[in-house]
Amino acid sequence: MHTAKKAVVLVSGGLDSVTALAIAQNQGFDCYALSVDYGQRHRSELDAAQRVTDAAGVPLKVLPLDLRAIGGSALTDDIDVPESESTGIPVTYVPARNTIMLSLALAFAEVLEADDIFIGVNAVDYSGYPDCRPEFIEAYQQMARLATKAGVEGGEMTIHTPLIDLTKADIIRKGSDLGVDYSLTVSCYQADGEGRACGRCDSCRIRKEGFSAAGIPDPTRYA
Amino acid sequence: MHTAKKAVVLVSGGLDSVTALAIAQNQGFDCYALSVDYGQRHRSELDAAQRVTDAAGVPLKVLPLDLRAIGGSALTDDIDVPESESTGIPVTYVPARNTIMLSLALAFAEVLEADDIFIGVNAVDYSGYPDCRPEFIEAYQQMARLATKAGVEGGEMTIHTPLIDLTKADIIRKGSDLGVDYSLTVSCYQADGEGRACGRCDSCRIRKEGFSAAGIPDPTRYA
Repeated sequence: MHTAKKAVVLVSGGLDSVTALAIAQNQGFDCYALSVDYGQRHRSELDAAQRVTDAAGVPLKVLPLDLRAIGGSALTDDIDVPESESTGIPVTYVPARNTIMLSLALAFAEVLEADDIFIGVNAVDYSGYPDCRPEFIEAYQQMARLATKAGVEGGEMTIHTPLIDLTKADIIRKGSDLGVDYSLTVSCYQADGEGRACGRCDSCRIRKEGFSAAGIPDPTRYA
Repeated sequence: MHTAKKAVVLVSGGLDSVTALAIAQNQGFDCYALSVDYGQRHRSELDAAQRVTDAAGVPLKVLPLDLRAIGGSALTDDIDVPESESTGIPVTYVPARNTIMLSLALAFAEVLEADDIFIGVNAVDYSGYPDCRPEFIEAYQQMARLATKAGVEGGEMTIHTPLIDLTKADIIRKGSDLGVDYSLTVSCYQADGEGRACGRCDSCRIRKEGFSAAGIPDPTRYA
């Protein structure tokens, strides 16, 4: 009997990560979703993560890690989320966010004996985040191969970033082809208690333009 | 006025990390201790971290991160800690432990605008842990330099491992020279509620032999 290879997929409940999950499933991986509750302003992101993994029929593990104790971001602190377009590294940048997420995924992969991790990072619409760049992912993979038992015993570890070169429109087209229901996802930095998007923050703007450019109706619920 | 450079020091409350802290202070760094509460079996390690940082006059931040949700180690699961000498990678290995610790330290360093992280890893008595090897630390540093704002803006990030090539006896001599009070530390994998060591686990054995080889009286409190 053929057993599918296991993969850990980082799922935030946003548009990108659910597309990465659909791609991993489409490639035949037996997926285990991991979501990190890093002290987001509201629960709507985690509620979305539960909805999208339920829809995909994939188990979701939620790890609490309160990064507010460390601080330094408008997403976890009491800094206002900007509503006009910003340049450079935005205040919504969470320090070492993808490094931490990937490290938790690496631990989970090691326990599952999985050699594959999927993360929905994107270097096109990345808004200046250093840890979304291909050179970062490459260096992370190098490190990960040395960090684990598998590394000592001659195994492999691959960090898959299927969205890294795609525009938001490409991502939406790809996910739609794979049957992703984007109405279940939340991308907004300041969604309300019901998971309705503000329509004004960087993340909302990029998402809205993506649906428009893809020529696909935007199913986002706006407040 | 000269301002000391800031450094984040990972402090577990054990013999190695308190020595790394003393070395960082001796090098003139303004130290910020970080301890991760990853669901250790008992509080004695964290109590020790508080005692040693109080003694050093350094602020301690404790981040809760319950790795029991991920599992896979005798230190966080209900697997028995072995009392006879083991070979290969021991069951006390916590998956991706140093990768996770360093990633949290990296986030903290970024918030503090510190370019230096100290970790008391050791490749001599490392008992087969993949993430204590110099090649892992080197790869981690490469990744860290790309992961952060400082990496984008041309800064640096150095992972200091002052103990990596030292024997346990060397570490104890070094720390004793710097005035470290090792009676405050706990190394035992299964210390009791009072922080008294079992005297039988791998960690106790290595520590006991270290004091003996250093010719320094062992101040450890045994149960």
